[in-house]
Amino acid sequence: MTFDDKYLSASRKAASKVCVGLDPDLARLPTGVSRDAAGIATFLTNIIDATHDLACAYKPNFAFFGALGADGFSVLRDVITHVPDSVPVILDFKAGDIGNTAAKYAEMAYDVLRADAVTVNPYMGEDAVEPFLRGQDKCVFLLCLTSNPGSADFQRRETEKGPVFELVARTAADWSDRGSIGLVVGATHPEDLPRVRQVAPTLPFLIPGVGSQGGDASEIVNQAATADGLGVLINASRSILYASDGSDYAGSARQATEELRATIEGRITED
Amino acid sequence: MTFDDKYLSASRKAASKVCVGLDPDLARLPTGVSRDAAGIATFLTNIIDATHDLACAYKPNFAFFGALGADGFSVLRDVITHVPDSVPVILDFKAGDIGNTAAKYAEMAYDVLRADAVTVNPYMGEDAVEPFLRGQDKCVFLLCLTSNPGSADFQRRETEKGPVFELVARTAADWSDRGSIGLVVGATHPEDLPRVRQVAPTLPFLIPGVGSQGGDASEIVNQAATADGLGVLINASRSILYASDGSDYAGSARQATEELRATIEGRITED
Repeated sequence: MTFDDKYLSASRKAASKVCVGLDPDLARLPTGVSRDAAGIATFLTNIIDATHDLACAYKPNFAFFGALGADGFSVLRDVITHVPDSVPVILDFKAGDIGNTAAKYAEMAYDVLRADAVTVNPYMGEDAVEPFLRGQDKCVFLLCLTSNPGSADFQRRETEKGPVFELVARTAADWSDRGSIGLVVGATHPEDLPRVRQVAPTLPFLIPGVGSQGGDASEIVNQAATADGLGVLINASRSILYASDGSDYAGSARQATEELRATIEGRITED
Repeated sequence: MTFDDKYLSASRKAASKVCVGLDPDLARLPTGVSRDAAGIATFLTNIIDATHDLACAYKPNFAFFGALGADGFSVLRDVITHVPDSVPVILDFKAGDIGNTAAKYAEMAYDVLRADAVTVNPYMGEDAVEPFLRGQDKCVFLLCLTSNPGSADFQRRETEKGPVFELVARTAADWSDRGSIGLVVGATHPEDLPRVRQVAPTLPFLIPGVGSQGGDASEIVNQAATADGLGVLINASRSILYASDGSDYAGSARQATEELRATIEGRITED
């Protein structure tokens, strides 16, 4: 199944725009979970079992696995394998390298780790993005306007054709005839979302930065959804994974996911 | 030893500005080397043994190891360990993520893989770079103007303060009081090097794109060296690693490194 098919079907079936971010931090694992690679595998497997019928996607961030070395790499592969086939996995890697090297990263993301989509940094331009486009099979989420304070440093710089992030959005829309492509736009910039949506009317937006980073999920969806009310994946990581630091962590993660889903959907019908 | 100490001492001792890029591609391994992770470990170990007295640094690119999965990760760590302590290792990872995640990548690069420096993508701004700065101990090479065709797409966009790449160079110079920082500037842009050098007069430049990508090493050094004739690391990967596809690959790699070193040094005295 293509990324788009998986995502649309999972989103409809779960009536959910929640993407569960898998950022396992040894220091924050719940009581009773061993603080090593095996503990992380157990922890994430339980989180997935408790949330897969409520999620439109999962998004493991490579950094949290890479910091554990080769064992972390193996756990990442196992965790991705554990996600049911009906729910897509977005590898958050923020890759960016020249063509022949980007091809190796695409191999890592799609063929070794079996992800359905990958986040890519646009700074190196077209030939750094191209190897990740595989027609409609996979999906590239291009960093556009990120959720962090540093997004002001370069992404907001005005060029002759608008700010850099808008240029990225327009370029992604242009490239979308070559393969499935989406944008990463942080929930911390609600005022900019309509502008990005205007430039890229049909692309899916992966939106991190609600919860721990402070973005308001309901406002975001109103600003960012496509004309048919879709095209939005709201990512939450820490607020779901660490909803409880006790042995009830999986149940608490499920509850946090349900609450986020309800916040999003409630506001949509309210509008 | 700090990165700077290692680099300056290795560069002086070897009278060399050559950084050897370690991009092991299974499909290009010489005859007789097994086409798996173990073969890559043998191949790169032999390359390092044959070139370490001629190199100012080594630069393994993560993609070529990551594409081999967890085994590739282990080989990368072993290969970095095999480099003599007197020669610095720059992990080419082009990392870029928000603060708490960037801290995990810094842990991966410096503590797990034991690299002396890491390449970082500037698109996400200051808080994405900050965790990689560790005073003078390590070094961050920030992507400025990359060697590939796609560098024209966003890096060359004019802003109110010059093109984006120049803004990155100026910002890196500003950040250099917080830790050792350098720039990645492709050898395929000789006409832009003096401008970048003017904006960042003392930062080390890591310069890929000679050899296979077509840049002219001698011209580059003339354009990019600091006032004292240093501050330039010319990276060559494929032209050294795959100088021969026979069993004499290590000797051929040594010869290719010597030739590049001579080209660089010869042109400097000629000038």
